[in-house]
Amino acid sequence: MPTALVILANGFEDIEAMTIIDILRRGDIDVTVAGLESLSITSAHNTIISVTETLADNHDEIFDTVILPGGEPGTTHLENSREVETVIKNHHVQGKLIAAICAAPRVLDKIGVIAGKRATSYPAFKEAMTSCNYSEEAVVVDDNLITSRGPATAHQFAFAILENLNSITKVNELKEAMLYNA
Amino acid sequence: MPTALVILANGFEDIEAMTIIDILRRGDIDVTVAGLESLSITSAHNTIISVTETLADNHDEIFDTVILPGGEPGTTHLENSREVETVIKNHHVQGKLIAAICAAPRVLDKIGVIAGKRATSYPAFKEAMTSCNYSEEAVVVDDNLITSRGPATAHQFAFAILENLNSITKVNELKEAMLYNA
Repeated sequence: MPTALVILANGFEDIEAMTIIDILRRGDIDVTVAGLESLSITSAHNTIISVTETLADNHDEIFDTVILPGGEPGTTHLENSREVETVIKNHHVQGKLIAAICAAPRVLDKIGVIAGKRATSYPAFKEAMTSCNYSEEAVVVDDNLITSRGPATAHQFAFAILENLNSITKVNELKEAMLYNA
Repeated sequence: MPTALVILANGFEDIEAMTIIDILRRGDIDVTVAGLESLSITSAHNTIISVTETLADNHDEIFDTVILPGGEPGTTHLENSREVETVIKNHHVQGKLIAAICAAPRVLDKIGVIAGKRATSYPAFKEAMTSCNYSEEAVVVDDNLITSRGPATAHQFAFAILENLNSITKVNELKEAMLYNA
């Protein structure tokens, strides 16, 4: 079973995080949700999620993908974390899939893993995306990087990750079951 | 500030619940999330949400809307709850907005509040919707009832509720900010 690590910091964007976790788990991905600082994380819109592991517990593990949801101040917390930087770099050197949506692609830009690659973000953060070849598409896949724009594109983002980890057949089956094709 | 009660039972559908809560809170609605049986609720796809109130704590309060997300076994728990029945009936007699998505409209059908009204549900539950005038539209508004179909229609459902409680201006502003118009 392919594995995914989703990192949640206080102030993560609710729809983005839950859409990613829900779709990947429906798609037979073993999803670990790690709290950046703690086992109880409060979303940008005040929902409290309890997890059983922190990022420190998964520090040395390599997953098939690492995913950063957006939201503020969640993204700022991710951006200021030395641990997030280490985890992203360790996965990048092994060619593992790295995915970020909304404000979070700017974390990848700062770390330096999207230099010269095609990438996108929430429109307001375009200026912070200094090293990439900026695109305004809803979801951008370039090499081992997947980036996307915001809450409204979260399902397309999740399906793009799932297609990479599982198959287009599984994606189509889920889109049908979840009524994305209706 | 308009008020909303979202009832979460173990096995609620993750995307549906979080999309409703996120969009309504962004839209200046005072959203109370009540656990049906407990203060810690596990979603259909294994995310644990912590809340500060149970339905019993809100038993006698009247909100501007009561919302039931879908998911299984969440919907079955809602369906078997005498307390949910009482809360829905108390709001219905006062003409308050009642909204349900995916599997949850069948709870409204069983309680009897959508008899003769236009309503929809997740396609597989069409047969369980015996008393209403069944529609296959993504979101159906009839009188004080709003029903919708599944995860892919959750944002349209949430925006329809918000339009009723706040304004179309607020809905359009949020759609723009969340990139639903992009």
